[in-house]
Amino acid sequence: MSPPTSTLFAAVLRCHHHRNHHHLRRFISTYSLPLSHPIYTIWAANTSLGKTLVSAGLSTSYLSSPHRKFLYLKPLQTGFPIDSDSLFVYSKFGEFFARNRPEFSVFASNHVLKASGLASKDVFRGGSDVERDENVSCRNGVVKKSEFFLSNSEMKGSVLGSEGLVRGGFGVERDDNVSCGNGAVKKSEFFDSNRAELSVFDADCELKGSVLGSEGLVRGGFGVERDGNVSFGNGVVNVGLYEERRLQGTENWEMKGYSKLVCKTMYGWKEALSPHLVAERENARVEDDELLGMLKGCLGIELESEKGGAFCVIETAGGVASPGPSGSLQCDLYRPFRFPAILVGDGRLGGISATISAYESLKLRGYDVVAVVIEDHGLVNEGPLSSYLRRRVPVLVLPPIPKEMSNNLMEWFQEALSTFHSLEEIMQSAFVERTSRLHDMPRKAHDFFWWPFTQHKLVPEENVTVIDSRCGENFAVHKVNNNVDLITQQFDACASWWTQGPDATLQIELARDMGYATARYGHVMFPENVYEPALECAELLLEGVGKGWASRVYFSDNGSTAIEIALKMALRKFLFDHKIVSDDLVAENSESHVDLKVLALRGSYHGDTLGAMEAQAPSPYTGFYQQPWYKGRGHFLDPPTVAMCHGVWKLSLPQEIETQNPSLEDFTFSLRENIFKESRDTSNLADIYHSYIWKTLHLIIDSSGSTRIGALIIEPVIHGAGGMEMVDPLFQRVLVKECRNQKIPVIFDEVFTGFWRLGAESATEFIRCKPDIACFAKLMTGGIVPLAVTLASEAVFEAFVGDSKLQALLHGHSYTAHALGCTAAVKSIKWFKDSKTNHNLISEAMLLRELWDPDLVRQISLLPAVHRVVVLGTLCALELQAEGSNAGYASLYARSLLQKLREDGIYMRPLGNVIYLMCGPCTSPQSCTNLLNKVYTRLEEL
Amino acid sequence: MSPPTSTLFAAVLRCHHHRNHHHLRRFISTYSLPLSHPIYTIWAANTSLGKTLVSAGLSTSYLSSPHRKFLYLKPLQTGFPIDSDSLFVYSKFGEFFARNRPEFSVFASNHVLKASGLASKDVFRGGSDVERDENVSCRNGVVKKSEFFLSNSEMKGSVLGSEGLVRGGFGVERDDNVSCGNGAVKKSEFFDSNRAELSVFDADCELKGSVLGSEGLVRGGFGVERDGNVSFGNGVVNVGLYEERRLQGTENWEMKGYSKLVCKTMYGWKEALSPHLVAERENARVEDDELLGMLKGCLGIELESEKGGAFCVIETAGGVASPGPSGSLQCDLYRPFRFPAILVGDGRLGGISATISAYESLKLRGYDVVAVVIEDHGLVNEGPLSSYLRRRVPVLVLPPIPKEMSNNLMEWFQEALSTFHSLEEIMQSAFVERTSRLHDMPRKAHDFFWWPFTQHKLVPEENVTVIDSRCGENFAVHKVNNNVDLITQQFDACASWWTQGPDATLQIELARDMGYATARYGHVMFPENVYEPALECAELLLEGVGKGWASRVYFSDNGSTAIEIALKMALRKFLFDHKIVSDDLVAENSESHVDLKVLALRGSYHGDTLGAMEAQAPSPYTGFYQQPWYKGRGHFLDPPTVAMCHGVWKLSLPQEIETQNPSLEDFTFSLRENIFKESRDTSNLADIYHSYIWKTLHLIIDSSGSTRIGALIIEPVIHGAGGMEMVDPLFQRVLVKECRNQKIPVIFDEVFTGFWRLGAESATEFIRCKPDIACFAKLMTGGIVPLAVTLASEAVFEAFVGDSKLQALLHGHSYTAHALGCTAAVKSIKWFKDSKTNHNLISEAMLLRELWDPDLVRQISLLPAVHRVVVLGTLCALELQAEGSNAGYASLYARSLLQKLREDGIYMRPLGNVIYLMCGPCTSPQSCTNLLNKVYTRLEEL
Repeated sequence: MSPPTSTLFAAVLRCHHHRNHHHLRRFISTYSLPLSHPIYTIWAANTSLGKTLVSAGLSTSYLSSPHRKFLYLKPLQTGFPIDSDSLFVYSKFGEFFARNRPEFSVFASNHVLKASGLASKDVFRGGSDVERDENVSCRNGVVKKSEFFLSNSEMKGSVLGSEGLVRGGFGVERDDNVSCGNGAVKKSEFFDSNRAELSVFDADCELKGSVLGSEGLVRGGFGVERDGNVSFGNGVVNVGLYEERRLQGTENWEMKGYSKLVCKTMYGWKEALSPHLVAERENARVEDDELLGMLKGCLGIELESEKGGAFCVIETAGGVASPGPSGSLQCDLYRPFRFPAILVGDGRLGGISATISAYESLKLRGYDVVAVVIEDHGLVNEGPLSSYLRRRVPVLVLPPIPKEMSNNLMEWFQEALSTFHSLEEIMQSAFVERTSRLHDMPRKAHDFFWWPFTQHKLVPEENVTVIDSRCGENFAVHKVNNNVDLITQQFDACASWWTQGPDATLQIELARDMGYATARYGHVMFPENVYEPALECAELLLEGVGKGWASRVYFSDNGSTAIEIALKMALRKFLFDHKIVSDDLVAENSESHVDLKVLALRGSYHGDTLGAMEAQAPSPYTGFYQQPWYKGRGHFLDPPTVAMCHGVWKLSLPQEIETQNPSLEDFTFSLRENIFKESRDTSNLADIYHSYIWKTLHLIIDSSGSTRIGALIIEPVIHGAGGMEMVDPLFQRVLVKECRNQKIPVIFDEVFTGFWRLGAESATEFIRCKPDIACFAKLMTGGIVPLAVTLASEAVFEAFVGDSKLQALLHGHSYTAHALGCTAAVKSIKWFKDSKTNHNLISEAMLLRELWDPDLVRQISLLPAVHRVVVLGTLCALELQAEGSNAGYASLYARSLLQKLREDGIYMRPLGNVIYLMCGPCTSPQSCTNLLNKVYTRLEEL
Repeated sequence: MSPPTSTLFAAVLRCHHHRNHHHLRRFISTYSLPLSHPIYTIWAANTSLGKTLVSAGLSTSYLSSPHRKFLYLKPLQTGFPIDSDSLFVYSKFGEFFARNRPEFSVFASNHVLKASGLASKDVFRGGSDVERDENVSCRNGVVKKSEFFLSNSEMKGSVLGSEGLVRGGFGVERDDNVSCGNGAVKKSEFFDSNRAELSVFDADCELKGSVLGSEGLVRGGFGVERDGNVSFGNGVVNVGLYEERRLQGTENWEMKGYSKLVCKTMYGWKEALSPHLVAERENARVEDDELLGMLKGCLGIELESEKGGAFCVIETAGGVASPGPSGSLQCDLYRPFRFPAILVGDGRLGGISATISAYESLKLRGYDVVAVVIEDHGLVNEGPLSSYLRRRVPVLVLPPIPKEMSNNLMEWFQEALSTFHSLEEIMQSAFVERTSRLHDMPRKAHDFFWWPFTQHKLVPEENVTVIDSRCGENFAVHKVNNNVDLITQQFDACASWWTQGPDATLQIELARDMGYATARYGHVMFPENVYEPALECAELLLEGVGKGWASRVYFSDNGSTAIEIALKMALRKFLFDHKIVSDDLVAENSESHVDLKVLALRGSYHGDTLGAMEAQAPSPYTGFYQQPWYKGRGHFLDPPTVAMCHGVWKLSLPQEIETQNPSLEDFTFSLRENIFKESRDTSNLADIYHSYIWKTLHLIIDSSGSTRIGALIIEPVIHGAGGMEMVDPLFQRVLVKECRNQKIPVIFDEVFTGFWRLGAESATEFIRCKPDIACFAKLMTGGIVPLAVTLASEAVFEAFVGDSKLQALLHGHSYTAHALGCTAAVKSIKWFKDSKTNHNLISEAMLLRELWDPDLVRQISLLPAVHRVVVLGTLCALELQAEGSNAGYASLYARSLLQKLREDGIYMRPLGNVIYLMCGPCTSPQSCTNLLNKVYTRLEEL
């Protein structure tokens, strides 16, 4: 190779690298899958139950009609090339059509994209595999075959280069010979020269497949020698083994059209063992993202632009939970795509159990199983299986499969054809049902739902988002683009109202735990009882977020109820401490001359039930038209806040403090951590805060003898619903101290801030003081089911202990401490605080590492469209510049921005002119950076 | 047989029948299982993976220490008698000890209790099985064997008769011969004459085993000829094949003690197929209850009084989900006992998947898997399995099992012994951990929990109920009786705060669904979105409980939040209809001169959050000491009520109506259904009600121009928390009509009454009118997770539609319409209203059949201790006679009664002096009768 070419090539390679890398990055955070044609995954209860026979059978059934394309994908093939399921499907299909459908014209191809070095060696050296096809009898027409090998790194450059050529037109040479080595790539014969468009696309797709698949080569293949000869190092190498065949039918195929079978093996390994073992033994590991990326690529290329009928099956390897090459179980590995499933069950003795268990493993990953197929072994296993499935999932029975190796199975396929027709029909109608349901859903949602916090008039049907599923932090959303159905991934950046925490792994473990908890407990009565999940949850809470102060756990259902309970606790404790107690107060109809109020911060928010609303300042939520019974039983202090504005953390003081202290300079912080430093306690500002608080408290108490402040309630550090404002933690600390001095019980509302939302398990880490009562909900269960707790100190509890039941706290909900919620909480609490499962955890500090790239955050804060930024833990909030009617909650200002970000694969919801990204405690900083980059780009456009 | 004997015998048989029948009945509703010794179930991922080897290995490991008893139970044996796992364990154990532990003295027995007629024939005719043991080489000591056959119905009488003899003392003859046919039963040799107590017990247990097991005989065996000869009819017959062996050790066994292996096969079938198939083919079906009854019997006999060390394994047949003889999957069949599990996994290719799937099927039934054991096939399957299990469940590897039939496996057992020791150790420590945790739980609950509605001072630690699990309607409760640990069943008659509905089958299906919903969705954001479970739930609600009036579904978390939302809806609708609307009211800080109140009935209860409490009349819940912010924003009408008093349904009118209508006679109803008749609308009483209501409404409105009744809220038909009062449905109907006339929106609080609680899906069936708004929760999800809905008519919805977001209903909770709750609701709503799954459903009427035996209810109402009875649907409530301080909520009157009923296996909670039984919509009337009988008996004692 001459130096100039080599240099050029290196540049191409770099360029390619970059593109490919980018592609994979994009894939992690967002993808879309075609839903224009049925795509099914074929699973099995165990190895060797006939998945490939089912795939082949479906191909013969589906292609019995003309003008159709059947795509068979085998992502993982071990025992290769001696075993090759895609070759089997390709061959049997050809044989079957040659014998049984002489009138049809069919085109078939088989393509092996990649293999371990070891496996590819056998292909290249003319292993036993290569001759195999010559035996296929061909009826009429000419079977032509061409193989071209794209095996070493030089090839890739060439392939890339050839793309232009192919796209350029029809001048591609026909070459029936094997082209191997470097030099120009020649595409093999085009079957249908009258349908140039399709053919070109087809040629293109093979190439693209190779290009897509080339990443593995780069990983494993740099050790491959460049010597013009094929060299077998370790790692996965490109194989590009390709063969195709056409059968000319007796009928005029130009009139009827032809049928097309495309078979692909994505990765092959030599040994006939589980992929995780051979990947290790042959030093040819494939990462999950890479594998899914290639699978998505193959699907996109083969199906996205396919105008006619098409049908795809993806055949897994081994059983449903057999590990893939990275070690991930296949049922977990393919989960992000959640293709509907066909389960090939076991018709043998013991097979009922094996089939049911495999079915349950699929359900535990959120798959829809459309049909079960078993081979007839004379045991009528279909009976118990149908009964287990309550006849909602059909069980089909295939005739006994001949065991003699010499049998070419043609009679068997013929005999089984009606079953395959039924199966295909079931799969077709399930597909039609699914898509038509997805199409109907926005209208029905529009007609039947009454969404909370939603002005229905402002949500036209077409704006309704259809969420097909979630996997970890991502939604899978149904969309129709240019009349084509898609399933698109969107990062749930609103963390579904701030509840979400699980990554994909935790989600699946929670699924098993939820199943277990339901089966073991369902729900059981709580008062006066104990059961494991409730107890373990309480223990974890008291050792965790309640450590050092809490001794009692009161369960309820959501943040709002937890707050109502907290208020009841605090007010009672106040009455108790201040000796405002009498028997009268205990009795029914009791009234008091005391008007108990709470002290709270303006902008804080504690829930939507009346009692919780009473503890928040008047707002659009509390107007007469919304809640005619709201009084506002609080005194509401304006708090100082902190935010990054134009690259600097700045403090904003409330009007009153500024008025009282006219000579104060601007406060800024060079580092965010300085905001939280305890040393600020001795600063002048601390005194100013104290005097502001002290004056306020005395004013309230003096002005009316009957009004008492019975409790302090704050959201520590961040006001969530109030617009993601960071309150100066020093101010909150001074406030808490002063209330303690005055024996006013202190409530921390950690519904939003708790469980790592701000980067620590409890926000008390940041304000460095403890409450008497604290409320947790949202993230506590990892984001699976509602559950809330109100933690209390023993002193608070004791205000309710006495001889009379009427002294007890008479508040409860039906599902108090329900087993599912407690189980989810136990799992999630442990998961988030274990560095083995949460890779973001800095174990020593018990803090999350910085998730949002500080430089990028600073860059964003410098954009003219951005007023302020608040970044802490899993939260990155931005207030957009807005004036006049654009400000405030009612604003629809951010809508168009967020609409664009949805197209980028980020699902966000605004809080007026505040927008925010929220990830889970385990989300990788890379994902966060990816999100930030997209936001930055869109903000720049503003 | 002479006539007198025959007569006597017939009487015994009848008596026995009765006892036995009674025993089984009792079993269904209550059982207790010993927890004094480890009991494990050995499961496998498939057939032939070595469960029996593991069992045998554990027996050799455990019995390596003296003075111990190992109980091996094989409930289901197919291929019998050629295959007999209990015989294998018995033989291998003997062989192993003879060879390897010459110093030990051991006693071993094998006992086969029952078999199909076909299988028993081979035993009786001296099938190949009988000689098998002569080959066992015996070291020292004499191997003695005796078999006695208890095969036909005559035998049973004799066995029963012999019990007295055995109990009577030690004079039982030693008979080494086979005793077969009728005549006196002779018990085989007692091994340890120095330990007479144990021996007698042991003898007794064999007999009891037979007696217990005799029910099958009666079912299948009446066609058996009485001719002295053995006769083989269909059905399951007693086999009573028994053999035993003792090995005299070299050490002084009287000093060291001996070890004892007891092996039992409960049921044998001839063909080597799945139990469900052979049970059918050999016409020898065994029902689940019968099987569990026998299993429990065997465990009780062998373990309950065992003072020394004991260990039990129960070996299942086939895979985890292989059907048992009734067709129930074994993992479902054994679920009521929920023994901890050992899973024998699969070490072969495909075995990772099979093992994981089997593990998941066990978890999906609520089992705890303590260890996984696999055979080494050189594939290192333990790696991925340990990684999947996160090393929390150990995976043990057994050496490769020799495949040659001739191998006696002695070397293998020796080689595997260390693994079996480890396994035993794991099982022992899991057992110790479990029991010590169960012992600690009450104290920890007492220290950490803050139970709702509970005066902690009144709940001593020893009164805390430890709930180990639930299965359908029953709790499994941990108890210590006379220092012996037990797991006891208690019927959850308070339906865990009225939430419960599932039977055991629905619970397991819900477990799968909860797993699926978590894996597919976790939770996803609701507003402006749609996803399948929320949509399907909404559709079912609008087609079901909302049919004919509701068009919108508003989701929230619990009854209390649903009520707050309903009130916000109703009050807005009222403002809208009465044109009390202005832009001011929409704004922040808006106040109004209008004081909006609700009309409600005294005694009704709508939840514990402040907004819901405001809609209920003052009560101990609402006093200043409980809820200082309560005002009582309602006008509360006294309603007329109906109840069965001393056998007659009687109407009680409120004081005011009685005063206004002094000449009114007593109203009674001959049948309950007459209370609900629409024809009562034209009665004089309807007019009286109307005038009472009309006057009240005018009085409120006239007295103050600013006070308006903005909503009516009622619990239709039954006031739940208010004391299970039945309100006259005519009164509620008249009330609703009058509110409609005055354009006051009507809310039905169906949180308690909805979803079949009262025998119809909605209580509107009984009051025969529709609301504008209705709330549902509790039973809606079948009793699994919290979820609530507020249904509304389109007219109500429209009061919130406008151009401004501020006109929308701004109320919501984080987990609004969470996928798990909606999925549970979808499943449960369908399950309860489908006569295929709910056998209580009278499909045509869409009503539940009468669950509580009317005669028995009437009898109860006649008891002097009973003041009134209210029976409807799943509810049977009794108010006890009480005077003075015993009346009212604070009463502890019923406590002692309920304590006794807990001993009878019924878990109830009082509402003051009202006690109630509450079953699920699918609970069998037989179970209800069983409960009623126990209550009747205890009430009679009062």
